[in-house]
Amino acid sequence: MRYELYYWPDIQGRGEFVRLALEDGGARYVDVARHAGGEDAMLALMDASRVARAPFAPPFLKAGRSLIGQTAAILLYLGPRHCLAPPSEAGRLWVHQLQLTLADLVAEAHDTHHPISGSLYYEDQRREAKRRSAHFVAERIPKFLGYFEDLLARQPRGVEYLAGRAATYADLSLFQVVAGLRYAFPNAMARMERRHRRVAALHDRVAARPRIAAYLASPRRLAFNTQDIFRHYPALDP
Amino acid sequence: MRYELYYWPDIQGRGEFVRLALEDGGARYVDVARHAGGEDAMLALMDASRVARAPFAPPFLKAGRSLIGQTAAILLYLGPRHCLAPPSEAGRLWVHQLQLTLADLVAEAHDTHHPISGSLYYEDQRREAKRRSAHFVAERIPKFLGYFEDLLARQPRGVEYLAGRAATYADLSLFQVVAGLRYAFPNAMARMERRHRRVAALHDRVAARPRIAAYLASPRRLAFNTQDIFRHYPALDP
Repeated sequence: MRYELYYWPDIQGRGEFVRLALEDGGARYVDVARHAGGEDAMLALMDASRVARAPFAPPFLKAGRSLIGQTAAILLYLGPRHCLAPPSEAGRLWVHQLQLTLADLVAEAHDTHHPISGSLYYEDQRREAKRRSAHFVAERIPKFLGYFEDLLARQPRGVEYLAGRAATYADLSLFQVVAGLRYAFPNAMARMERRHRRVAALHDRVAARPRIAAYLASPRRLAFNTQDIFRHYPALDP
Repeated sequence: MRYELYYWPDIQGRGEFVRLALEDGGARYVDVARHAGGEDAMLALMDASRVARAPFAPPFLKAGRSLIGQTAAILLYLGPRHCLAPPSEAGRLWVHQLQLTLADLVAEAHDTHHPISGSLYYEDQRREAKRRSAHFVAERIPKFLGYFEDLLARQPRGVEYLAGRAATYADLSLFQVVAGLRYAFPNAMARMERRHRRVAALHDRVAARPRIAAYLASPRRLAFNTQDIFRHYPALDP
């Protein structure tokens, strides 16, 4: 089966968490909205008055006849099919729980530059963005990274991923979050990474996985940019 | 088995989505933090440097030896065990997807009164809260409620819940979201509900379910208040 991924064509965004799982899982997929007419097709599928089980927002995945929206739900589906989730129900719930925690962090990272509304430009909420970012950097990044650092510190020797010896989609997502935070807040992250060495090592370990390394070097991997969820504005990272 | 629910004792918050599922599902549970010493026990379980699979934040559920955090993950676990999710994998993913969309709305509702930081008082971010709330009311509530209204409008005659003839945890959660929005934004909701009659009818249908009605009338149901996720501040609902 060839999956169809629907996401905005010019950003990594939340779609990137799905792309990383598809790439690491060796799945066949087409990134629909990057092709001619694909963005219109994507928007048409989100019309809940016409489409059964229409998703609320991108990303969503077409898998055979199923249409699956919400990043974490897509990963819940893909995980066991592509060796990116543990076999037991308890293990899968744990990985899903980690993913949902990362999703919370991603939403907060977005709101650092859009604390008032997604319908306004950053320039129209710069003062609030500066205030929110200061709290995000001082309180939230350390809280989230500290949590993952603690989880990794408890792993027995030789267990190098969050949920065991095998990587799961939560590990791929933590890689992406670290990469995004480094891009958006390079100064803050340079200060903080000394205290989160295990998280940084996990980032590197994921980046070195053969399929991920190939993906990152390919044109399929878009660059971070200031239209994305993680954005670098020097004023927000003094 | 008797579940143990861990959540802040004085608010509905995200714990309420779990309580509603436990109550409607007829599950035996104890709301741990409402009892003497329970809040300390809750905080101790969140120490990822000591506890295996420690949750990042409340609510979390102890089910036998499993500790499950993240509201949506808890509901994913409870759904099939208490007749609150469809039997098929596709149906369960759909209900989970709806829950995650509602979770996004809940996070946005929280940030209307805390657009800068959860570590500051509302009074310290009132100006920003007013600005964010205006956008939330004008853009986000209609977008979310319109989506659920469209989903309900597509249901065949006689199908009264979001995912079929039987209620799921997503229906219980939509009830809670509507109740919370009505409390927080009574003026805005009074204007909007005319355009979302199916959503309002679903709220009433859930409230009339025997176990939910009994729960809502019991002392176990806490009142909405201004320490909670949904907060009523007249300045935010002109």
